[in-house]
Amino acid sequence: MKVGGVHYRSVWPGDDRRSVHAIDQTRLPHAFEIVRFTRREEIERAIRNMQVRGAPLIGASAAYGLCLEMADDPSDAALDAACRSLLATRPTAVDLANFLEAMREALGPVSPADRAECAWQRAEELADASAASCRSIGEHGVKLIEQLCEGRDASDPVNVLTHCNAGWLATVDWGTALAPIYLAHDRGIPVHVWVDETRPRNQGASLTAWELGQHGVPHTVVVDGAAGHLAQRGRVQLVLTGTDRTTADGDVCNKVGTYLKALAALDNGVPFWVALPETSIDWSLRDGVAEIPIEERDPTEVTWISGCDTSGRVVDVRITPEASPAANPAFDVTPARLVTGFVTERGLCAATPGALSRLHARP
Amino acid sequence: MKVGGVHYRSVWPGDDRRSVHAIDQTRLPHAFEIVRFTRREEIERAIRNMQVRGAPLIGASAAYGLCLEMADDPSDAALDAACRSLLATRPTAVDLANFLEAMREALGPVSPADRAECAWQRAEELADASAASCRSIGEHGVKLIEQLCEGRDASDPVNVLTHCNAGWLATVDWGTALAPIYLAHDRGIPVHVWVDETRPRNQGASLTAWELGQHGVPHTVVVDGAAGHLAQRGRVQLVLTGTDRTTADGDVCNKVGTYLKALAALDNGVPFWVALPETSIDWSLRDGVAEIPIEERDPTEVTWISGCDTSGRVVDVRITPEASPAANPAFDVTPARLVTGFVTERGLCAATPGALSRLHARP
Repeated sequence: MKVGGVHYRSVWPGDDRRSVHAIDQTRLPHAFEIVRFTRREEIERAIRNMQVRGAPLIGASAAYGLCLEMADDPSDAALDAACRSLLATRPTAVDLANFLEAMREALGPVSPADRAECAWQRAEELADASAASCRSIGEHGVKLIEQLCEGRDASDPVNVLTHCNAGWLATVDWGTALAPIYLAHDRGIPVHVWVDETRPRNQGASLTAWELGQHGVPHTVVVDGAAGHLAQRGRVQLVLTGTDRTTADGDVCNKVGTYLKALAALDNGVPFWVALPETSIDWSLRDGVAEIPIEERDPTEVTWISGCDTSGRVVDVRITPEASPAANPAFDVTPARLVTGFVTERGLCAATPGALSRLHARP
Repeated sequence: MKVGGVHYRSVWPGDDRRSVHAIDQTRLPHAFEIVRFTRREEIERAIRNMQVRGAPLIGASAAYGLCLEMADDPSDAALDAACRSLLATRPTAVDLANFLEAMREALGPVSPADRAECAWQRAEELADASAASCRSIGEHGVKLIEQLCEGRDASDPVNVLTHCNAGWLATVDWGTALAPIYLAHDRGIPVHVWVDETRPRNQGASLTAWELGQHGVPHTVVVDGAAGHLAQRGRVQLVLTGTDRTTADGDVCNKVGTYLKALAALDNGVPFWVALPETSIDWSLRDGVAEIPIEERDPTEVTWISGCDTSGRVVDVRITPEASPAANPAFDVTPARLVTGFVTERGLCAATPGALSRLHARP
């Protein structure tokens, strides 16, 4: 996607094959900065502190992290240790495990001397495939928006509510939940996005709003509590989110607060769809509430916030009483019964048992 | 309630009968400051900019505003104009209308020469009655917490989730939703409060957390999106909120986001109770979604936030891209079908049609 007219991916390899570049997502929306990594440990730190975040992007970044390791030390022991270490950076998004598994399958049979070359090649293939999957999600998902547009006045756009950031910043390119929205906008379908602020870390207010703005898509930021009111007043036609891990039976783990959006959608007859590439599906799990580990992050993400002061300086401020503790569960699980359907690179399917497996031709 | 060992109300008349004092709620939790008003217009501004807020406190503050007007100009014309002007400060909380109506009933038949004296006296009676109502709400509501405590281990407190601030800062004293919690804590019932941050304006993170902390009640601040996850994991035994206006049939209008908490409670079998004095009931309305005006406040309340920087200075920072618009509906309506019951100064009742009317002996 484009930033100021220049095409960017969220993460990309250096021409020197000794470095990886990424957009520093902790600096947006106040500054657009590229960060350069030359060691696997730097990428691990970037995943942990969310300079790169979003389920598919975490996976792709980890694959590139393995490239840096193989360029340093292509031994079996280093491959094993690096995979383990990268996998431990964050517990919830399953793309991390899926990308690392794909890298290991490619690198395992290759002799150490050829591993660095093979790693860069395989990581690039996976990144390209991930971007292509997101583009396909857009092609399939745009049909939902087209359908909702039928019979509406041109001055009355389809209002899509989204939570967190499932745009191109969360993926290698295109995004998951935002891909259909970009395509709809590009095709002249009037679409407007309600952007949930998405506390804490405010990925909606700082990332989704920013990338929609860069692309010229009409949008309005609202607090996370506003979705119910908007749905109740007929001001939301579709809720569309991404996911960090979806079980074979369709339970959706995503940024904390997503579950409340699904409840509000159901209570008001608004369809609730989830957009995801196959790398975000955990075929080994069925019950998301019982089985998906929910990351507890540092409470300072709740008690402190970063913003731009009146003189343009980025400042961290504390927003709670000094003595008050906070808790910070980063994800929640939306049971499949609340999900209308899924948009994947293979097409659309209802969130009924077996539907995702059939769509992806899994046993 | 006490701040640093000294008893305060949220608003109180000056000894000179020419001024009104209040705790400036826009400065908490970073500074505890008293603001002094000498003109009705200053109180109107304080209500609009939320230096005083919370449905019962808005009502009491308006009553004191009328006292200042009557001390200046006790004419019929001034009484009429002041009532109209005070009523127009905020549209949603019905206590404002109810307190002004009670003042007007007292002042109307009195000769202008006696109106100032009568106004101070009546306002004090209303403030005392409001504080007493809240204390009664506490006495009735504590039974809910006592019941939930039965059979629980002492190390396993009753976890109450609350949204926004319905504590003593939102009332003249004691609070509505927090009154039962204070009494439970004082009586040695182990209680822990999940404090919804409550975006925008963060009344939970800045006011509820602060007043619970002053009183020593164990609490944890969470983002507004976390309630579903906590309820799903069995970590919430009771949701208890206040209300700005409740219809005769039990539809509850409260700070935006409350409706999502009610949906999460229902989906997880957690009781959802609303605590309110009679002054927060609008007996003239039945359908809250259709009939209650929802205030749209300035979008800068969403796009900017105030906090304390690392050097202890209070700073305003922008948290959205400069070009992104925001919307700021301040309230939402929770339909009575999602409410388990009400705690009023008269007792407890289910949220069934007619139950509130019977409890309050209304025709």
